[in-house]
Amino acid sequence: MEIAMIGLGKMGMGIAENLLRHRYQVKGFDIDPNVGNALLEMGGDFYPDIDSLLANKMDRQIVWLMLPAGDLTNNTVMDTANKLSEGDILIEAGNSHYQDSLNNYEYCQAKGIHFIDVGTSGGVEGARHGACMMIGGEQSIFNNLRSLFTDLCVENGFIHTGPAGSGHYLKMVHNGIEYGMMQSIGEGFNLLHHSPYDYKMAEVAHVFNHGSVIRSWLMALVEKIYQEHGEMTEVAGIIPSSGEGKWTVEEALRLRVNLPVITQSLMTRFASEDCDKISEKLVALLRNQFGGHAIVKDE
Amino acid sequence: MEIAMIGLGKMGMGIAENLLRHRYQVKGFDIDPNVGNALLEMGGDFYPDIDSLLANKMDRQIVWLMLPAGDLTNNTVMDTANKLSEGDILIEAGNSHYQDSLNNYEYCQAKGIHFIDVGTSGGVEGARHGACMMIGGEQSIFNNLRSLFTDLCVENGFIHTGPAGSGHYLKMVHNGIEYGMMQSIGEGFNLLHHSPYDYKMAEVAHVFNHGSVIRSWLMALVEKIYQEHGEMTEVAGIIPSSGEGKWTVEEALRLRVNLPVITQSLMTRFASEDCDKISEKLVALLRNQFGGHAIVKDE
Repeated sequence: MEIAMIGLGKMGMGIAENLLRHRYQVKGFDIDPNVGNALLEMGGDFYPDIDSLLANKMDRQIVWLMLPAGDLTNNTVMDTANKLSEGDILIEAGNSHYQDSLNNYEYCQAKGIHFIDVGTSGGVEGARHGACMMIGGEQSIFNNLRSLFTDLCVENGFIHTGPAGSGHYLKMVHNGIEYGMMQSIGEGFNLLHHSPYDYKMAEVAHVFNHGSVIRSWLMALVEKIYQEHGEMTEVAGIIPSSGEGKWTVEEALRLRVNLPVITQSLMTRFASEDCDKISEKLVALLRNQFGGHAIVKDE
Repeated sequence: MEIAMIGLGKMGMGIAENLLRHRYQVKGFDIDPNVGNALLEMGGDFYPDIDSLLANKMDRQIVWLMLPAGDLTNNTVMDTANKLSEGDILIEAGNSHYQDSLNNYEYCQAKGIHFIDVGTSGGVEGARHGACMMIGGEQSIFNNLRSLFTDLCVENGFIHTGPAGSGHYLKMVHNGIEYGMMQSIGEGFNLLHHSPYDYKMAEVAHVFNHGSVIRSWLMALVEKIYQEHGEMTEVAGIIPSSGEGKWTVEEALRLRVNLPVITQSLMTRFASEDCDKISEKLVALLRNQFGGHAIVKDE
């Protein structure tokens, strides 16, 4: 089977490597021509643009799109769909908003292109050696692609989630859960750092991961972090976020569903990025105004 | 090696079973004489009170205490310590507050009894077939007991955490993390229940647990829950709590450490138990007072 990859960043290149190891033919395109050599060395073909990538097709074309979510993905879906033929399959495996995927599905459907939305978890290592995939779209097309997902995922690591958009919707909620789990772990270890005891954090994470209720892949990563970063002195306490936590909270607002911990995890990330600290300054000055409480001067 | 068990509830009986399988001699006492038969059938000896349990000791006595935390544990520690001889070892493996364990350690130390505090995780199945244990107390006594913990725990599943109290302190924080992780999972699945898609929740939990970032033992339990309970119609949405989440938040207040998500998880449990809903009633009536907004009448 031949797969046309569009987007060869960390995740896309990981999928390409995974496909090539499973003896798929892989042809690829990326806006950065420098990644072409890496793909060629792995045994794939690299093309300088989408037109040439999609030329010389043998059979039903299968495109795997893995780009940053938003305009780039949406524009590339439309551009690619315009160049495909009826019956071709476009798999969009980025971290897209499910509403975008619904729109992209409709755009493709009008042209007779089968659009499949795939939420991918497991990180770069997962992309390379076995990911977890949540797959939305037509049942019959999913059935046709079953062997592809069997090859790319860990055993039992994929699911047909339902109609278009449901794959990315589930990935969004997955990441919302991830925000809360990560924040809980961060808080617990913060308390341990301030505790009256001198815990060896890597050993703590190690034992938490063997037989305890909170054993998890995230805890395995915590052990690795403490082994590699020790006191984490070189890292700023700023947590970026790429959208899915925010979308989860927006969806909760839309549906009037109570998500206190996931929302608080997102707000904690926003607070970590907030250098202005306007609200803290204002509250400190209010205390000063009515109570004469001292303020801490900024240097 | 002979172990004297005090407390043969679900966890204590699980430890007894685990010990007997590893060919320890187990003698036990519980306030409920009915559990005695179960211990006898497993190959242990049952005694009607602590005095007879501790009589006829052969060598250095090792007592494993596994009782509900608080007064019962603390009183039994004192009672037992008074009946032991200098050099004996008292292992307190309940879910005790670390301050209690510090007090119990001092009480025992004054009598020459070695007090070891053990935080145990992994549930009843862990107690029976391999637990995770966080062990505070004297290094030399821990060294003497290493083979005991090797037998009772999963591989790599125990740690000497430091001086007295540090085992129960770590278990407290472990449970705080557990509160936040569980709440995140609960919120995510709640959103899925309200979503526009018809997800099969057991299958979702199954795929989340194969290759995804949030794979974890808790997610395996979620799959089991959806398989066994379906729509959960028979369960009330009330979450009891047994203390360690509250202690984690109290410790954060004492140390002035920010734990927003763990605190919110605890508050969500309190809210789930609150049938009076005074604050909700008051806020609804305030909206009604100043804005004329309708209130929902209670039937």
